[in-house]
Amino acid sequence: MQSHIQPVDLDRGGRLINHGPTVLVSARHDDVENVMSVAWCCGLDFDPPKLTVVLDKTAQTRTLVENSGRFVVQVPTIEQVGLTNKLGTMSLYDDRDKLVHSGASFFEMPGYEMPFLTGCSAWLACSLIPEPHMQEEYDLFVAEVTAAWADDRVFRNGRWHFETSDPKFRSIHHVAGGQFYAIGEARNAKDL
Amino acid sequence: MQSHIQPVDLDRGGRLINHGPTVLVSARHDDVENVMSVAWCCGLDFDPPKLTVVLDKTAQTRTLVENSGRFVVQVPTIEQVGLTNKLGTMSLYDDRDKLVHSGASFFEMPGYEMPFLTGCSAWLACSLIPEPHMQEEYDLFVAEVTAAWADDRVFRNGRWHFETSDPKFRSIHHVAGGQFYAIGEARNAKDL
Repeated sequence: MQSHIQPVDLDRGGRLINHGPTVLVSARHDDVENVMSVAWCCGLDFDPPKLTVVLDKTAQTRTLVENSGRFVVQVPTIEQVGLTNKLGTMSLYDDRDKLVHSGASFFEMPGYEMPFLTGCSAWLACSLIPEPHMQEEYDLFVAEVTAAWADDRVFRNGRWHFETSDPKFRSIHHVAGGQFYAIGEARNAKDL
Repeated sequence: MQSHIQPVDLDRGGRLINHGPTVLVSARHDDVENVMSVAWCCGLDFDPPKLTVVLDKTAQTRTLVENSGRFVVQVPTIEQVGLTNKLGTMSLYDDRDKLVHSGASFFEMPGYEMPFLTGCSAWLACSLIPEPHMQEEYDLFVAEVTAAWADDRVFRNGRWHFETSDPKFRSIHHVAGGQFYAIGEARNAKDL
């Protein structure tokens, strides 16, 4: 699988999340690592790309982000719906073996001191831009994307190819309570 | 069409945008009204629901939002892909007849002094929460949702029904340069 992970030019990195998928946020600090599901992740700027994520105060991943100043945003596939749901409902505070019990596994990206989740379709390495008021008041975190990668079986030449790729790579979009939609058919406004 | 517009309970209002659709932001001030496409709109809190939108400094809609302190976030359908693309590429600053030329038409919601775009699947009336630093530095606007409505042919009983509704109601998710994806098949993590 990892042979399919290819770098994405930073000026195209925002396209990995522009269509609004539910994402997974992972971080590491002092040998503690964790990953959580985040429905509220959003683009903020183009080049260099910036993004926002909402991280609840009850989430241990938030503490890891605050302490390390960095995190990974990854885009899970429809094959990972069950995993994504577990990672959004279990807390490392309650279950020290959350990662084992949820089936999450990480890999290393040389030069990046962060845990990258296996089996996703895209990964964005993020550097926190501290905005203490927004973090405290709204749980909103701002970050700059410093590097990005994608699985070239579904994202290549700077764009998604969901419509011609194996359906197992489709991104998932959470509504509430474990109800997701996969991304669907392509439509180009220029063809109208 | 408007007979299908039903109020949505505020504690379910966030579900209208949780799945990450491209939205249209409309506002009115001093008899000037406008609407623009926004790919970067995101949930921020549940009850009362809050959201964020990114409004570029070149957009006249931004000025209307800043001056009136309120705006509507609406969810366009796949039938509105062409309209959505036009509303994201034309500026009222360049074309005073943008609304006529794009084919946008508004309706009134009694009690709400804002323009609501005809033909969408959901509407969220928003009240700006001023965060001057975020607005200036990141073009990021925070708002509280004060009321919400949806077309009951695709959203009812507090949830989307894309999978059993006419496909013309599917939400659209912009990637870049007029390339969109419609929302696709449903998948419930509880069924796995």
